Amino acid sequence: MMETIQAIKYKDGQLEILDQLLLPESCTFIPIWNVEDAWAAIREMKVRGAPAIAIVGCLSLAVELRELAAPETKEELCRLVKEKLDHLVTSRPTAVNMQLAAEACVKLCTRLTDNTSVNVAEAKDDIVKHLEATLADDIADNRAIGEHGASDIMKKNATKDKLRIMTHCNTGSLATAGYGTALGVIRSLHTASKLDQVYCTETRPYNQGSRLTAFELVYEKIPATLVCDSMAAAAMKQFKIDAVIVGADRVAANGDTANKIGTYQLAVLAKSHDALFYVAAPFSSIDFQIPNGHSIPIEERPHSEMTHTGSIRTAAAGINCWNPGFDVTPAELITGGIITEKGVFKPDQLAPHQ
Amino acid sequence: MMETIQAIKYKDGQLEILDQLLLPESCTFIPIWNVEDAWAAIREMKVRGAPAIAIVGCLSLAVELRELAAPETKEELCRLVKEKLDHLVTSRPTAVNMQLAAEACVKLCTRLTDNTSVNVAEAKDDIVKHLEATLADDIADNRAIGEHGASDIMKKNATKDKLRIMTHCNTGSLATAGYGTALGVIRSLHTASKLDQVYCTETRPYNQGSRLTAFELVYEKIPATLVCDSMAAAAMKQFKIDAVIVGADRVAANGDTANKIGTYQLAVLAKSHDALFYVAAPFSSIDFQIPNGHSIPIEERPHSEMTHTGSIRTAAAGINCWNPGFDVTPAELITGGIITEKGVFKPDQLAPHQ
Repeated sequence: MMETIQAIKYKDGQLEILDQLLLPESCTFIPIWNVEDAWAAIREMKVRGAPAIAIVGCLSLAVELRELAAPETKEELCRLVKEKLDHLVTSRPTAVNMQLAAEACVKLCTRLTDNTSVNVAEAKDDIVKHLEATLADDIADNRAIGEHGASDIMKKNATKDKLRIMTHCNTGSLATAGYGTALGVIRSLHTASKLDQVYCTETRPYNQGSRLTAFELVYEKIPATLVCDSMAAAAMKQFKIDAVIVGADRVAANGDTANKIGTYQLAVLAKSHDALFYVAAPFSSIDFQIPNGHSIPIEERPHSEMTHTGSIRTAAAGINCWNPGFDVTPAELITGGIITEKGVFKPDQLAPHQ
Repeated sequence: MMETIQAIKYKDGQLEILDQLLLPESCTFIPIWNVEDAWAAIREMKVRGAPAIAIVGCLSLAVELRELAAPETKEELCRLVKEKLDHLVTSRPTAVNMQLAAEACVKLCTRLTDNTSVNVAEAKDDIVKHLEATLADDIADNRAIGEHGASDIMKKNATKDKLRIMTHCNTGSLATAGYGTALGVIRSLHTASKLDQVYCTETRPYNQGSRLTAFELVYEKIPATLVCDSMAAAAMKQFKIDAVIVGADRVAANGDTANKIGTYQLAVLAKSHDALFYVAAPFSSIDFQIPNGHSIPIEERPHSEMTHTGSIRTAAAGINCWNPGFDVTPAELITGGIITEKGVFKPDQLAPHQ
């Protein structure tokens, strides 16, 4: 299988990320020396994508901890770790992965503190190992998502030789540790020779589709066509698209899904064009603490993302803008199901598999 | 009433148009000396909008005819006029206005040729006057469209104090001789103090909404918010939009409407969000020669419109694009009606008012 792009490079306490702001013009890796670097890179969207945000956050803490002389006590170590994690969680509000990763790490800290047979140096090593494991875990999850998703879509379209899939935003190697979620499913379909064409939306205003997804698709020679967000319905009608597959920044307990702005309308349009609508997300994107999508905080982004492309003004001076980064797709529109590393579930059937 | 922007200036054989490619950075008028200049300006989208295309085409021919020494015979004059008009019709394929204007002018030529009491110089003058009248006629039509549309929307929302309207692309002073079609209706609602807010879509890939409509709305201090095309459904839901009003490049006899790409999906989304969907268009945009939207030619535009903003590359090199300039909205989705200078009609009720 062809190597996918690797946007997060980590080895022995050295972390580098691909600066996605410079794509597609330039492929430049920048070093992340500490949690503060990671926080800034996430906020500025040099790295984005719910899984990738959590991984870069966790790895940046691993980098810091490796350099750190072990504190006097495990309590002090855990207080420090929690403080850093709390800060990382504030970098962007909508994706839940960093928050869930932080909660898991804090739980580990508590266990290690309670375990009298572990000393502070060993505790620090365990925390570092736990944080470092997020990278490999995510790739394994994504490959499982790809397999589960592709086989579900093939099963539901058994009479069709090849499938036409639409996707939104970037959910590929650049949004994850590698392989991708929704784009992982598309990769698996392509590997199985079942992909006719993937239609990727531009994904305004930040162009994650045209800059990042298109970059991955060209790189891997997957048959692909770029469309503007305004062309989604026309494309569904003209090309008879079989399924829409998107990622998730946070899935609520009932299956309501927050994802990149524009996802909700793709779900409405998919329904009216008889295309299945799937969300592909690891369980680390599912927030069982909130009952439904109404409680998901939606980040509002700067207006300049809409009014300028680089230094070029593309909107009239003085115009008011509305720039939510995400929207919520109600569970009932997720007609295909939610594709996870544990299988494909109906939106209301997630909890038993937690 | 506040003066609207004037994008087409014509007086005594002198024609100037606002170069819309330079908006919003710069307001620059360029002279149009002849039909060839007009053809190029239309093709390059220095002027766009179905009514404006026809007006600039007609006026450019008036400019040429005024300079021309009258030919020897009326037949020769008419042959020349027809040749020029045929060329103008080829500038862009989807809008029908230039074609209908050309047909009307050719009919006038035939009448003048058949009328033995008219000499060639008088015929030339009559043709010039006919062509010059398109400017004032269009403004009058647009003001009537504005009045009819606003009163219909107010009537259908009688219980609401102020209305929230969404529009797509640019259908204002910049797309017409002045005032506008869909934007004319919005202007009339604003004048009647019934407009709460207009949401204008960016209208990718050419950004007619963010560059042109936003420019007009800011200029006239109409309360407005710019949204990306991907935000339409989220905005309809969040702001409870009452109606979507768009223009038309060509309306078929059954009411199917070709308009800027993205219109079709707004109509689907309006239906699922209980917003009325209106098309605002003069009868000069209605093509009774074609029974339905299947026969409307859809222009495909260059991929560079999607891959670059000015010199900045916004899409990965090598990605395939689909860039239709227009799509067709089926008549049944035009739930509000078609707003014309003669009144607001159900899509299937246009023919009797022809």
